[in-house]
Amino acid sequence: MSTLSEKESRAPTTRLGPAATRGLNTNYRGGLEGDRAREPDQKLPELCGVGDPTATFSSDSSHLSSRGSIIKWFWDSAEEGYRTYHMDEYDEDKNPNGIINLGTSENKLCFDLLSRRLSQSDMLQVKPSLLQYPDWRGHLFLREEVARFLSVYCRSPAPLKPENVVVLNGCASLFSALATVLCEVGEAFLIPAPYYGAITQHVYLYGNVRLVCVYLDSEVTGLDTHPFQLTVEKLEMALQGANSEGVKVKGLILINPQNPLGDIYSPGELWEYLEFAKRHELHVVVDEVYMLSVFEESVGYRSVLSLERLPDPQRTHVMWATSKDFGMSGLRFGTLYTENRDVATAVASLCRYHGLSGLVQYQMAQLLQDRDWIDQVYLPENHARLKAAHSYVSRELRALGIPFLSRGAGFFIWADLRKYLPEATFEGELLLWRRFLDNKVLLSFGKAFECKEPGWFRLVFSDKAHRLHLGMQRVRQVLEGTSQVAEDPPSCQTQEPRGQHR
Amino acid sequence: MSTLSEKESRAPTTRLGPAATRGLNTNYRGGLEGDRAREPDQKLPELCGVGDPTATFSSDSSHLSSRGSIIKWFWDSAEEGYRTYHMDEYDEDKNPNGIINLGTSENKLCFDLLSRRLSQSDMLQVKPSLLQYPDWRGHLFLREEVARFLSVYCRSPAPLKPENVVVLNGCASLFSALATVLCEVGEAFLIPAPYYGAITQHVYLYGNVRLVCVYLDSEVTGLDTHPFQLTVEKLEMALQGANSEGVKVKGLILINPQNPLGDIYSPGELWEYLEFAKRHELHVVVDEVYMLSVFEESVGYRSVLSLERLPDPQRTHVMWATSKDFGMSGLRFGTLYTENRDVATAVASLCRYHGLSGLVQYQMAQLLQDRDWIDQVYLPENHARLKAAHSYVSRELRALGIPFLSRGAGFFIWADLRKYLPEATFEGELLLWRRFLDNKVLLSFGKAFECKEPGWFRLVFSDKAHRLHLGMQRVRQVLEGTSQVAEDPPSCQTQEPRGQHR
Repeated sequence: MSTLSEKESRAPTTRLGPAATRGLNTNYRGGLEGDRAREPDQKLPELCGVGDPTATFSSDSSHLSSRGSIIKWFWDSAEEGYRTYHMDEYDEDKNPNGIINLGTSENKLCFDLLSRRLSQSDMLQVKPSLLQYPDWRGHLFLREEVARFLSVYCRSPAPLKPENVVVLNGCASLFSALATVLCEVGEAFLIPAPYYGAITQHVYLYGNVRLVCVYLDSEVTGLDTHPFQLTVEKLEMALQGANSEGVKVKGLILINPQNPLGDIYSPGELWEYLEFAKRHELHVVVDEVYMLSVFEESVGYRSVLSLERLPDPQRTHVMWATSKDFGMSGLRFGTLYTENRDVATAVASLCRYHGLSGLVQYQMAQLLQDRDWIDQVYLPENHARLKAAHSYVSRELRALGIPFLSRGAGFFIWADLRKYLPEATFEGELLLWRRFLDNKVLLSFGKAFECKEPGWFRLVFSDKAHRLHLGMQRVRQVLEGTSQVAEDPPSCQTQEPRGQHR
Repeated sequence: MSTLSEKESRAPTTRLGPAATRGLNTNYRGGLEGDRAREPDQKLPELCGVGDPTATFSSDSSHLSSRGSIIKWFWDSAEEGYRTYHMDEYDEDKNPNGIINLGTSENKLCFDLLSRRLSQSDMLQVKPSLLQYPDWRGHLFLREEVARFLSVYCRSPAPLKPENVVVLNGCASLFSALATVLCEVGEAFLIPAPYYGAITQHVYLYGNVRLVCVYLDSEVTGLDTHPFQLTVEKLEMALQGANSEGVKVKGLILINPQNPLGDIYSPGELWEYLEFAKRHELHVVVDEVYMLSVFEESVGYRSVLSLERLPDPQRTHVMWATSKDFGMSGLRFGTLYTENRDVATAVASLCRYHGLSGLVQYQMAQLLQDRDWIDQVYLPENHARLKAAHSYVSRELRALGIPFLSRGAGFFIWADLRKYLPEATFEGELLLWRRFLDNKVLLSFGKAFECKEPGWFRLVFSDKAHRLHLGMQRVRQVLEGTSQVAEDPPSCQTQEPRGQHR
């Protein structure tokens, strides 16, 4: 029951009513960089949206609470893609005509290296202390190791401290815990969109916290800008929009390297966003789960923990995990780093519900301290393989004349398939997605990431060559109209599937 | 950082205002077993209490949400006992004058057997599928194994089904998830008290669900009754009390074998409680984590899953874990069994936040399927060791003339130290507890379990002989007044510590 069972969030129905843009021309826009005067009655583009994760929900169970029904609905409505894929999963020998999964963001390139390392005898240590109730922050030996590890790989100016570390069973849990301890029910985080859509659920299911999208678009508006560029102006406007809708924003979520864009924020940009947050007394949650999956040295990635100082260290909270950078999403290991002791303690208090096995904690400490293996074996080989896979998919897309974004980080390419849409709407996007699925290749469509322009797709390239080649061949068939599948969607499909894939 | 780091719930301040008993003489009491006519103005004993987990809370952090501050407070207020114990933990060689922990309910008798089994080569299997995103209900191979295991050890009349199984990282998480999907915010579960106090937090921290205590007392009122006996009459009265306070009760929590009493419900009793719940359309959450820790064959324990049929199968949800029965509270493996697919699905949807490593899932499947080891090695030896330790502590208590309950199940003895209290109040109970701690032995006091009679203590006996003997010697010193510690509490102690121990 592998990859696709991570049921990711469907893009919540987003709305930007007049309330959200009301007043944007007045208070905040005056002194902002790049601002140009607009007439008050001029129609504003959709710059933000307050998500309502339950907009299309209807209850179906008398045995559940109303929130229980919503929680179940999140599972059920992800089932279509999940069922379709798992009923017909590709297997080179047993099911060569099965579905190739270029949707789930997992790194399948290094299982050989990982299996070998994790099978070594040092990994199976069964001490009594590992079988007893742990410190819910994580065993001290592991927090010490995490602090050392992050000090080195985030290149922190000073050694990071174990007491600022909390370990738990993955970043999904960490989003849930942070949302709960930082926000009241109904409050919100800002998040630049497109973004990894599952965060919608992570902050909502337990925490009842919403996301306010800071919509980015593909238009390039100046010499120094690039498509989907995040600016402080956009942050300010989204914040203002939320305020005018009566939604209290408590923080900002930054994903760096970004998912699904693959973008990397420069230290200068990062600093601006952090300063924006400080000005408004917003927490910043920095998700750096792809930190070591930067396979192009030249892009010069910088962790937020590498900054000489932080504008507001008490409100800056960093998350990292082994799911992506060590290709082990099934291992369930994530970590928080924050200088705010209250936040660390409150999250630790919730870690009773997010605990990981003492045996796994021991394994992770062994892994993270094995710098020889990491530096000499794993990272060089992993990066080389990511780069090769990325180059292959890039070449294929170029050959097809498809524009795409890709910055040399992450496991995916953000591709512009707008010209292939039967109509320039999200319904058209869904039709194209179904055509791919009917031709046995699973991609992620842009709406699952809250992209506001229909027609963008995320293609995951971090897979073995034989699957990747076959997957890209099937993509090409659909785009060139040479696939054997019907152009019309099957009539039985009624419900929009949720975006499935991290 | 071992045993005590499980920060358990302090007994929430309970109140039984007039509202809670109002009307008890009228509607429900008429036809109930054992009921005797009372004058309407006669003072009723405290029969139920609606818990307010935050009664003594005051906020202390401007960076946290109000609920975040409460969540942090639950951690902080557990710190006294934790800090005291961990700063001075007993070690035979390094710290022989350190504190002996007879407070945390862990089985420390079988680490040798467990270490040997878990270190065998079959336990370290690193397949790619284990490193990828799992089915959040748990890998199918594990759910199949759990269904087979529970069918055998719960002696179910028909084979249990993998599709009714959800696995996750422990029963704390399961309480949290069930509370959230079954109750709205502010709704409640009935629970017979004394009970394992941490459940207060488990249903409250994320779920905002409260507990309504069904108070049991030590008085024996008839030939067929025993101390702290749960009756349907008491359940009815507590439900009525909650209703009259405007608290909506959605379910009943039963712990069987019971913690801290060690009680076992007979099939007849169990049936009555389940019928009570059905009458009122209440869910029943049956916590059977001590199911295989029944070391006296004669007590005839029966799992709820062994009943020929259930009164209300769609509202009956069973939890089990390896924490107690396999002495591995640090391994974080628990499971739900329910025939209600909606509940299973809703809990599964929350399991993204309660997931356990694929590697651990594999290990647990290996363990649970090794019936030879379980039946020939582990269970007989574990039961023999539990029995021996239990006999020793029983003898000691008898020699001291201390009344106690003990039914041949669980890791603890519920002892009546009322005659040793400096005053017959919870303050007196706390003073005695501190006297034990000052004499370097940690016990759990009754208030941590919501016991309504001051003076009851839970003594955990599932520890190695040398620690147990020393611990009991220190208990004896305090009770006989021969300890070297001052009789007066140190003046620096101001805050009541939370009950720490499962």
